[in-house]
Amino acid sequence: QELARRVVSARAFEYFIIAVILFSAVLIGLETSEELSATYGGLIQWGNRIVLSIFIGEAMLKIFAVAPRLRLYFGSGWNLFDFSIILLAMLPSTGEMAMLARLARLLRVLRLITAIPELRLIVETLIRSIPSMGNIMLLMGVIFYIYAVAGQQLFHEHDPEHWRDLGISLLTLFRIVTLESWTSVMYTAMEMNPYSWIYFVSFVIMGTFVIINLFIAVVINNLEE
Amino acid sequence: QELARRVVSARAFEYFIIAVILFSAVLIGLETSEELSATYGGLIQWGNRIVLSIFIGEAMLKIFAVAPRLRLYFGSGWNLFDFSIILLAMLPSTGEMAMLARLARLLRVLRLITAIPELRLIVETLIRSIPSMGNIMLLMGVIFYIYAVAGQQLFHEHDPEHWRDLGISLLTLFRIVTLESWTSVMYTAMEMNPYSWIYFVSFVIMGTFVIINLFIAVVINNLEE
Amino acid sequence: QELARRVVSARAFEYFIIAVILFSAVLIGLETSEELSATYGGLIQWGNRIVLSIFIGEAMLKIFAVAPRLRLYFGSGWNLFDFSIILLAMLPSTGEMAMLARLARLLRVLRLITAIPELRLIVETLIRSIPSMGNIMLLMGVIFYIYAVAGQQLFHEHDPEHWRDLGISLLTLFRIVTLESWTSVMYTAMEMNPYSWIYFVSFVIMGTFVIINLFIAVVINNLEE
Amino acid sequence: QELARRVVSARAFEYFIIAVILFSAVLIGLETSEELSATYGGLIQWGNRIVLSIFIGEAMLKIFAVAPRLRLYFGSGWNLFDFSIILLAMLPSTGEMAMLARLARLLRVLRLITAIPELRLIVETLIRSIPSMGNIMLLMGVIFYIYAVAGQQLFHEHDPEHWRDLGISLLTLFRIVTLESWTSVMYTAMEMNPYSWIYFVSFVIMGTFVIINLFIAVVINNLEE
Ligand code: NA
Ligand code: NA
Repeated sequence: QELARRVVSARAFEYFIIAVILFSAVLIGLETSEELSATYGGLIQWGNRIVLSIFIGEAMLKIFAVAPRLRLYFGSGWNLFDFSIILLAMLPSTGEMAMLARLARLLRVLRLITAIPELRLIVETLIRSIPSMGNIMLLMGVIFYIYAVAGQQLFHEHDPEHWRDLGISLLTLFRIVTLESWTSVMYTAMEMNPYSWIYFVSFVIMGTFVIINLFIAVVINNLEE
Repeated sequence: QELARRVVSARAFEYFIIAVILFSAVLIGLETSEELSATYGGLIQWGNRIVLSIFIGEAMLKIFAVAPRLRLYFGSGWNLFDFSIILLAMLPSTGEMAMLARLARLLRVLRLITAIPELRLIVETLIRSIPSMGNIMLLMGVIFYIYAVAGQQLFHEHDPEHWRDLGISLLTLFRIVTLESWTSVMYTAMEMNPYSWIYFVSFVIMGTFVIINLFIAVVINNLEE
Repeated sequence: QELARRVVSARAFEYFIIAVILFSAVLIGLETSEELSATYGGLIQWGNRIVLSIFIGEAMLKIFAVAPRLRLYFGSGWNLFDFSIILLAMLPSTGEMAMLARLARLLRVLRLITAIPELRLIVETLIRSIPSMGNIMLLMGVIFYIYAVAGQQLFHEHDPEHWRDLGISLLTLFRIVTLESWTSVMYTAMEMNPYSWIYFVSFVIMGTFVIINLFIAVVINNLEE
Repeated sequence: QELARRVVSARAFEYFIIAVILFSAVLIGLETSEELSATYGGLIQWGNRIVLSIFIGEAMLKIFAVAPRLRLYFGSGWNLFDFSIILLAMLPSTGEMAMLARLARLLRVLRLITAIPELRLIVETLIRSIPSMGNIMLLMGVIFYIYAVAGQQLFHEHDPEHWRDLGISLLTLFRIVTLESWTSVMYTAMEMNPYSWIYFVSFVIMGTFVIINLFIAVVINNLEE
């Protein structure tokens, strides 16, 4: 057990796991090429099995190192993530589930974040900065909801493609707030009513103003730390 | 009256009002679906009536709590907003006014801002940051006006869609300053005169430069507080 | 002369001049409507003459107030600007020059900046922040020039619309750096050579990175003051 | 040798080299015009030869000034850059290599950066700020890779133009993160599966959020210095 503990916390072990994850990422990349996956399909499958075995071995080592206090392992969100990736590999990869199994395997690349301490730190920082945006996000939600309902009621007959129901209206508003071809939606609405620009211009100004303030909140939050 | 005061300032009462507003928002959302509003139209109407009664009850309680010093109620912009939402519900919701009555009902979602103290604070902060942008906005207005008149005079014959009058020219300039498909407008103008790019490039540089300075003014204003 | 000095520095005189400029701006706006300028053309012309006379009177008063030390008047860039607007009004407004005379009259709206001290301050601040961007602008210029020559040499045969000569190439690069439909230019170039994306992606990354640093330079310059 | 040292560090020498580089840039610009390079082709070629000789002379002077301790010259990245530009001029400029020789000559404009100390400083600052972005870039890379593989697997049959292989998928994602016509790609994907918006909206939010944090990291890094 002492040995397991030492192995688990060794730098070389960390680098070995990172190398395995990178190898796994390359395998996943190769599978996107139909040609390569046709020729080397068998090899790739073997590679995936080896990666999985190493992940299982790693998890067992880490659990053994802290046994019997399993909370030291399962208490960390990162370890839980690693563990669930192993569980997801148990999905049957045949028939209709093939696509899903493939996407599940894709999560292994995310293990890079759990394996590299610097990335883990950044992700933790980013996640911790989310609450500081909470209230502005809520305000954004209120504005989006009001404009979505109003947009659906005003334009759904004239331009069903962009305003047919509440969901599509929200998607259209999200697109407008990224300033992506927002004028084409506006010009279509102005064909119906020349005053429609009020709706769009007010939303663009309000939306970008709130987003800028969201941005400022994140900056100030970062500066304070 | 003491009781009214206690009720009004209780946390449970606050949460109850927020729940009513969310319920109202859901009702408004349901109405956007023709199918649902056809089947459950009666229920939705009843829901709206209940929401309205609770809002009236809330306003009466709050007024009673401070009576007879009504200024304590009507002196707050937020209370005035709540009160005017009740008044707007008195609009006839039949015939031509149906659409307007619906949009007025939409304002009830905005009551989320008056009901949640954190949102109230953010909106107050945002509104208070507007004067610090005042002068830059005025400068922006001068630039927009000059470019709009010049654009209308230079391009209105060749490209009436974007420059036919002062209003449309201002709208086109707003679109250009959001960098939304500004080159298509420019290429059309360059067909007429190959030097038209001077107009557009100078406006894009000036406009974004002023907007960046607007942004900086808001950031610095925020940092100072 | 003492009287002239007092008049010139009076608040009421300042407000009067601002009102005249706003009136002039309205006149200029009215002229953009063919209908209105056909009906009230004579009145508008009279208005313009009155505005001009007031501007001449203002300049004479200000010069008289400091006479004979004319440097106190002509030493200020703002006064020179006001004075040249009067001179520009002497342009013949008939025949081919009509359009030019109109655009010259448009500069009167800019007098709002010289008339309102707050705007004058902002513009002075903006102009003073330009040198702090000088070196980054020069770097930007070097990058633009290199990419423009390379783009012209690589793509001018396949896509003459965007790369036919050095000037058009620079315009295309400016458009790409505002992220305006840059992919359509790239896809056209990739038809010729599938590796063309290297040119575009590297330019987008480099260009936006330098612009962000330009932006940071302005922010830091502002914070230091 | 003492003389060489003095010449090399003289201001006038610096300005002379800058002038030669600018002259070289003009020559390169003239070559982009087929008309001019047809008429004055010989003169331009002579100009290029003169520029090259001056660059060789400059390098020899600088090397002589520090001889025999050549490390003082070749130890600087900037000098190495200058030296390799001379070597590149030795490329044969005939036949198939003509285009390559032209692009190599274009690098001479970059010598403006090595010749102007202020530009050298900015580029050094920009390059030094890259490591502070390293980890966020790595995180960005992980996100891009996962979305590229998922996008290729989900959409490559329906929309081969944007998702046919891993490379094109990465290019499409880069385009989406610059918010360039990202909705047209999304709408195509939604034809196949109406829930495709989840893929795009989540990527836009995550991508811009990480880029904003990249930006903040650069700002804070700059403020600390
Ligand atoms: Na765009
Ligand atoms: Na854009």
